[in-house]
Amino acid sequence: MSNSYGKLFRITTFGESHGAAVGVIVDGCPAGLEISIEEIQHALDRRRPGQSDITTPRKEEDKVTILSGIFEGRTTGTPIAMVVNNKDQHSHDYSHVEHAFRPSHADYTYTAKYGTRDYRGGGRSSARETVARVAAGALAAKLLLHHGITVQSYVSQVGSIKLRKSYDKLDLSQIDSNKVRCPDGKTAARMIGVVEEARDNLDTIGGVVSCVVKGVPAGLGEPVFDKLHAELGKAMLSINAVKGFEYGSGFEGVKMRGSEHNDQFYTDEQGNIRTHTNNSGGIQGGISNGQDIYFNVAFKPVATILQPQTTINDAGEEITLQGKGRHDPCVLPRAVPIVDAMAALVIADFLLRQKVNKV
Amino acid sequence: MSNSYGKLFRITTFGESHGAAVGVIVDGCPAGLEISIEEIQHALDRRRPGQSDITTPRKEEDKVTILSGIFEGRTTGTPIAMVVNNKDQHSHDYSHVEHAFRPSHADYTYTAKYGTRDYRGGGRSSARETVARVAAGALAAKLLLHHGITVQSYVSQVGSIKLRKSYDKLDLSQIDSNKVRCPDGKTAARMIGVVEEARDNLDTIGGVVSCVVKGVPAGLGEPVFDKLHAELGKAMLSINAVKGFEYGSGFEGVKMRGSEHNDQFYTDEQGNIRTHTNNSGGIQGGISNGQDIYFNVAFKPVATILQPQTTINDAGEEITLQGKGRHDPCVLPRAVPIVDAMAALVIADFLLRQKVNKV
Amino acid sequence: MSNSYGKLFRITTFGESHGAAVGVIVDGCPAGLEISIEEIQHALDRRRPGQSDITTPRKEEDKVTILSGIFEGRTTGTPIAMVVNNKDQHSHDYSHVEHAFRPSHADYTYTAKYGTRDYRGGGRSSARETVARVAAGALAAKLLLHHGITVQSYVSQVGSIKLRKSYDKLDLSQIDSNKVRCPDGKTAARMIGVVEEARDNLDTIGGVVSCVVKGVPAGLGEPVFDKLHAELGKAMLSINAVKGFEYGSGFEGVKMRGSEHNDQFYTDEQGNIRTHTNNSGGIQGGISNGQDIYFNVAFKPVATILQPQTTINDAGEEITLQGKGRHDPCVLPRAVPIVDAMAALVIADFLLRQKVNKV
Amino acid sequence: MSNSYGKLFRITTFGESHGAAVGVIVDGCPAGLEISIEEIQHALDRRRPGQSDITTPRKEEDKVTILSGIFEGRTTGTPIAMVVNNKDQHSHDYSHVEHAFRPSHADYTYTAKYGTRDYRGGGRSSARETVARVAAGALAAKLLLHHGITVQSYVSQVGSIKLRKSYDKLDLSQIDSNKVRCPDGKTAARMIGVVEEARDNLDTIGGVVSCVVKGVPAGLGEPVFDKLHAELGKAMLSINAVKGFEYGSGFEGVKMRGSEHNDQFYTDEQGNIRTHTNNSGGIQGGISNGQDIYFNVAFKPVATILQPQTTINDAGEEITLQGKGRHDPCVLPRAVPIVDAMAALVIADFLLRQKVNKV
Repeated sequence: MSNSYGKLFRITTFGESHGAAVGVIVDGCPAGLEISIEEIQHALDRRRPGQSDITTPRKEEDKVTILSGIFEGRTTGTPIAMVVNNKDQHSHDYSHVEHAFRPSHADYTYTAKYGTRDYRGGGRSSARETVARVAAGALAAKLLLHHGITVQSYVSQVGSIKLRKSYDKLDLSQIDSNKVRCPDGKTAARMIGVVEEARDNLDTIGGVVSCVVKGVPAGLGEPVFDKLHAELGKAMLSINAVKGFEYGSGFEGVKMRGSEHNDQFYTDEQGNIRTHTNNSGGIQGGISNGQDIYFNVAFKPVATILQPQTTINDAGEEITLQGKGRHDPCVLPRAVPIVDAMAALVIADFLLRQKVNKV
Repeated sequence: MSNSYGKLFRITTFGESHGAAVGVIVDGCPAGLEISIEEIQHALDRRRPGQSDITTPRKEEDKVTILSGIFEGRTTGTPIAMVVNNKDQHSHDYSHVEHAFRPSHADYTYTAKYGTRDYRGGGRSSARETVARVAAGALAAKLLLHHGITVQSYVSQVGSIKLRKSYDKLDLSQIDSNKVRCPDGKTAARMIGVVEEARDNLDTIGGVVSCVVKGVPAGLGEPVFDKLHAELGKAMLSINAVKGFEYGSGFEGVKMRGSEHNDQFYTDEQGNIRTHTNNSGGIQGGISNGQDIYFNVAFKPVATILQPQTTINDAGEEITLQGKGRHDPCVLPRAVPIVDAMAALVIADFLLRQKVNKV
Repeated sequence: MSNSYGKLFRITTFGESHGAAVGVIVDGCPAGLEISIEEIQHALDRRRPGQSDITTPRKEEDKVTILSGIFEGRTTGTPIAMVVNNKDQHSHDYSHVEHAFRPSHADYTYTAKYGTRDYRGGGRSSARETVARVAAGALAAKLLLHHGITVQSYVSQVGSIKLRKSYDKLDLSQIDSNKVRCPDGKTAARMIGVVEEARDNLDTIGGVVSCVVKGVPAGLGEPVFDKLHAELGKAMLSINAVKGFEYGSGFEGVKMRGSEHNDQFYTDEQGNIRTHTNNSGGIQGGISNGQDIYFNVAFKPVATILQPQTTINDAGEEITLQGKGRHDPCVLPRAVPIVDAMAALVIADFLLRQKVNKV
Repeated sequence: MSNSYGKLFRITTFGESHGAAVGVIVDGCPAGLEISIEEIQHALDRRRPGQSDITTPRKEEDKVTILSGIFEGRTTGTPIAMVVNNKDQHSHDYSHVEHAFRPSHADYTYTAKYGTRDYRGGGRSSARETVARVAAGALAAKLLLHHGITVQSYVSQVGSIKLRKSYDKLDLSQIDSNKVRCPDGKTAARMIGVVEEARDNLDTIGGVVSCVVKGVPAGLGEPVFDKLHAELGKAMLSINAVKGFEYGSGFEGVKMRGSEHNDQFYTDEQGNIRTHTNNSGGIQGGISNGQDIYFNVAFKPVATILQPQTTINDAGEEITLQGKGRHDPCVLPRAVPIVDAMAALVIADFLLRQKVNKV
C-alpha cells in the first residue's frame, strides 16, 4: 500500500529507474473528464531530462502511453493506466555502485529494509519514479481546471539567492520563460549563475520551490488528521530530496504576535468573504478558506556529485567513490512540474472528498 | 476516514471540546504489551491545562478511562478504547461567538465545509482534540520503548528567542525542569519572559518545537509516498497551529553544496554503520538509517487574543469581537507532549509495517 | 484496521463482552442528518437479550450514550461516538472456561493468533460486539431513509422449517409481530416449535435470515472488487455464526440456463427501466439496477450448548465441558436487526461513494 | 480505490476487455521471493480462452510482461507491474451493442453509474479483467507455497450434475486431467455432456466451484469485520457471475443441532491440536484453526447467449438482440484458476497481517 497516494483520487505507481518502464494507475478520476494525451505529454516534457544546459544532459523522450480508462477523449470512471518505457535499460555499467553505499543515497537504507536491492541507478529511490506522479498530476490538474482551480509552482531560491517578492507581486506567466523556472528575470539570471558555478565545480546546490493554488473554494480539507496543509506537506515531503515544508507565514510566522498574525475577515463588494491579510496561506483549521493557498518546499543539494567521496561498501569496508554519468547539478528547475503534480493530486482528492460531507 | 491516523498502528479519535467526552480507539496495538493506566495518565498530565502560570489557567483533570483492549495489565490485540470526559460542558455562554467568524479560527471554514457547526468552543477544531492523540501516543511510546526507541521533544524557539545549541549538545533530561519545556535553563528563562510579556499585553506568541528520536533501527519508512519524514511531516502538520516542518538540515540545507551536505558512511569500532555528519536527520530515501532522527515544527501564535478584533458574522456583517475566558498565551509548552505523541504514533506504525517487508 | 468497516461511511468498534463497555465511532456520516437517540435505542432494543422466551433470558438494558458528533438534533459531520456499558462485568465466574478451548468457539484460534486471550465470555468474539454495529446501523438506516431506501430482514428458515414464499408475497410489516421474526404467522409458529424443542433438549439450531432492500437507485456499487453484492456478502459473513451468503437466484440459480436466468429489460408506463424477472437480485455487474435487492444469510447453530462436550484445554489435555448460564437456543430472531444494520451500513457507504463518480 | 484488493498484499488492476491492455500492480509482496515469469504464465494459460471445445473458441495468447519489481529472479519489495496486451482490439464491430442494454449484463448499470460507458465488449465488466487477478494470484500462490500452503479448486457442480464426494475423498491431482476440471472422471464426463448440450442449444449453464486450502497455520484472519471467511467470501463474490458463497457446513449446516455441528478438539499423536469433524471449514471466529479450509462458490449461467432476446436500448425502446461471436457456454472450467487466484490473494494478505499481531 506504500506505493499509492490519495483516498478518492488515488494513484499507484511502479517502476525502477533502469527497469523496463515506469507507470501509474489512476483510480478514482471521475467519469466524463475531457483529456488528451498531449496534455499529459506536455507535463512530462516539463520534467524531462536534457531540456537545458543546467539540467542533466541525458536525453530521454519519456513518451507516455495510455493503456486504459479513456474512451473517445473522455475518462470513463475506470482506472487509467499510463506507462513510460525506460530507454536503454540494459546498456549501463553498474559495477562501481553494485556494492557501494553512496553517501546520502538510499542504497544502505534499502538494503537494511529489504535485505536486497536493485542497484541499477537507484532502483525505486530514483527521481525517475516521479514520471508517474507527473503523468497522474496532469490528469488531476485537468480536473481542477474544470473546477476553476490552477496550480503554479516556481523556483524561489537557489543556494543563497532568494527571490524577495511574494507570489502576488510576480508575473506567474513567466515561470517557463527561463531555464531555472523563476518568474523574475533578474533573480533567475543570478540563480542560473549559481547552478552553473556548482556544475562547473562538479558539485550540486539546493533551493526552494514555491507554489500557489488559486480558485480553491472554501471547505476543502478535512479536520484533524487530514488537514489540507498536512496532506500538502506529506505530498511535498514525499518528493525526492525534499527537506522541509511551510505554508502561509511558515517558520517566519512563529516570531509574530497573534494580533499581527490573525487574518481579519471582511465582506468585499461582490459579497465574497475575504481576509485582509493571508498569513493563513488560504487554510484555517486545515480547511481552505477561499483565499490563495501558498507554500514553500525546501530541496537539498543533489547527492550524486562528480567528485570523489569516501564511503563504505556492503561489506562495511571503506571505499572511494566518484559519481559518473550525467546528473543534475540542481534539481530545482525540474522539480517545479513535480511540485505542480503533487499539489494537483492533493487538491483533486480533497475536491472529491468534499462531495460527501453534507446530506 | 478523516478521523483516523496510521495504517497498522491505527487510531480513530472523536469528541468536541465542549461535548460529553473526547476519546480514541487504538486498533492494531500488538498483543502482549505491558501497559498501566498511570503511564497514559502521565502523558495526559503533561498536556493538561492549568499546569503553570504561562499556560491557560483552566483547571481540567483530564482523567482517562480505558474501556477495552487491556486485560490483566497487557494489551490483548483487540481495540483499546480510551475516554476522557469533558468538564462542565453545559456551563458556558457561547452567545458572543455563536454567529461570529473569529479571525484565523476554523469557524468560517467549518461552516463552509459542513453547512453547520458546533459553535461551542471550536468544536472539533479545538486543541482539546489532542487529548485523544496524547493518550494513544503514550501507548505507542510504550511499544517503542519495548524496542529501545525513545522520543524527546522540547521548545527550541519562542518568538525570536532561539535555542542555538543542537539537540546533541543539550541535556534532554531537563526538558520538564522548567515551565516552558526548554532544556537549556538560560534560554528557558528568556523564553518565559517573552511569553509573559505577550500574556500581559493580552497577546500571544509562536515558536518552534524540536524533536529527537533515538534508537530507531535502519529500515523503517516506506519508499515513495510513505517516506518516514513525509509521514512525520503530515503528523506534525496535523497538530493545531502548526505552520511548518523540516528535518535534518531542513530549510538551511538548501544553501549547501552537495559535497558539504552529503553524510559519508563509516563503520565504527563495534562494526556499526554510521555517518560522520547527520544532515540527513537519520533518514535517507525516506527510510531510517539508524542515526538519530531530528526535526523542527513551527507553531503560529494562538489565534484567540484578549483584545478587540474586527471580523464578520455569519450574515457577512462586520462585528467587533474580544476573546474572553482563559487561554494560552503561547501553545508551545503544552505542544511538547503532543509532538511526542504524534512522533511515537508514526514510528510505531512504521515499526509494524517493516515486519512484512521480507519473505 | 481490522475493527473498521466501510470506506466513506466508516465505523470502528471496540469492546469485549465482559469488559467495561462496547461502542463505536462512526466517521463519515454526512452533516445535517436529523437523528434522535430514541431511533438508535429502538434498534438496540430489537437486538437486546431477554426480549422473549426463545432468546437468552439474560436481562441487559443496552442503553446507548452518544458522546460526540450530534448537536441540536443533527449530525455535524464530525465523528459520532456511541457507547453501551456492560452490566455486571465483574460478577461472573469464568474458572470453568479460563483454560478450555470450547468446541466451535474462537478460544483456540484467538490464543493461536494473539498468544493470549481475554477469556471472559468470549472477549471480542462474543456476539455482544454486534451492539456497536446495530447502533451504527441505525444511523446508516436513517441516512438511507432520507434517500427513500428501506432495509427489511426476517427469519426465513429455522432448522428444516423453510418459508416457501418469496419476499414479495409477504407482508413485511409483520416481521416483529411474533417472537421469531418471520412475517408469515403459520411458518413462524412452526419455527418457534423447533426452537423450543432445541432449547428443551439443551441444544441449539441454525437458520436463515433473508433481507430485502427497496428504493436503491441504479448505479450503487463499484465494478471489480467492491461489487455491491461482494460487500454485502462480506458484511453478512462478518456477523458471528454466519456460514453462507447468496443473492438473487443464489445457489439454486446454478441449475438454470442462461435463457431462463437472464432478466430482460423493459420500460414501464412511468418510463422507468425495469426487468421482467429479478434473478439478478437487483444487482448486475456489481452495481444496483434499481430493482429490489434481496439476499439470504445462513447461520449455524449456536456453539454454546448446555450439554457436556469433550474437548481439550490449553495444555492440550482432554476435558469435559458443559455450558452454563443463559444462552440463545437459536440466534436467528436477534440476528435480524444485525443483518438490517450491516445491510444499511453497506448501502450507506456505496451511496456516498457514488457521489464522486462523475465530473 | 475500488480497483484495489488486499490490505498488505495489495493488488490494483486496470484494463478494458477491448482496450490496449489489462494489467496489475502488486504492492506489498515481500522482498526475496523467488519467482519466474513461467510460473505466472502457467496460471494465465489455465485461464486462457480457446483451451478446449467447451470454452470459447477465441484464441488469445495472454502473454504476460513484467515491468518492474523483480530483479535477478527475486522480488525486490517494490511494486510488481504485469501487463497482458489485448489482441485485435480495433477489429471488432460493436454497432449491435453500442446502444443496447443486454439482459443481465452491466450495460445499463454502468451507464447509470458513470453517465457513459465503453461499450466495446463489456469494458471493465468483462471477465477479461480477471487476467490481472490470475497473474497476481500466481505470485500470491508462490508466497503461500513458500509457507507450505496450497490452494486447489475444482468444478463440483454443473447445472444439476453435482459431485457427491467431499474434497477429502477426491484425488485433487486430477483436476486438470479433463476439460471441465472436475477431479472425478465419471462426474466430469456427465458435466461435459451438460455443457455440450447447453452449447448446442445456443444456451449457457451455471455451476459450482469448490476450493480447498491446506497447510494454513492457526491464527490467520482478523476478528470482527475482516474474518477470514468474510474476506474469502468478498473475494469470491467479486468474481464475475458469482451468486453465492458458503464455507464449511454452509447452507446445509443451518439444519443441524449445535451438538451435531460443533467440532470437538483433540490432541493427535504428534501433539497437534485437531478437530474430529470440520463443519467449521477450518475457520472459527473468523480465524484459521489449522484444519483444511474449504468453501463453495456458485456461478450463474453466462449472460451472453446466442439466441434472440428482447430488451431495450439506451433510449428506452424495445429491441431484439442476438449474441454473436465466440463465448463460453459454461464459465466454470475457466473459473477454476480465478478462484485459485482470489483465494491465494486473500490468504497471502492475512499471512502478512498476522505478522504484526504480537509484540
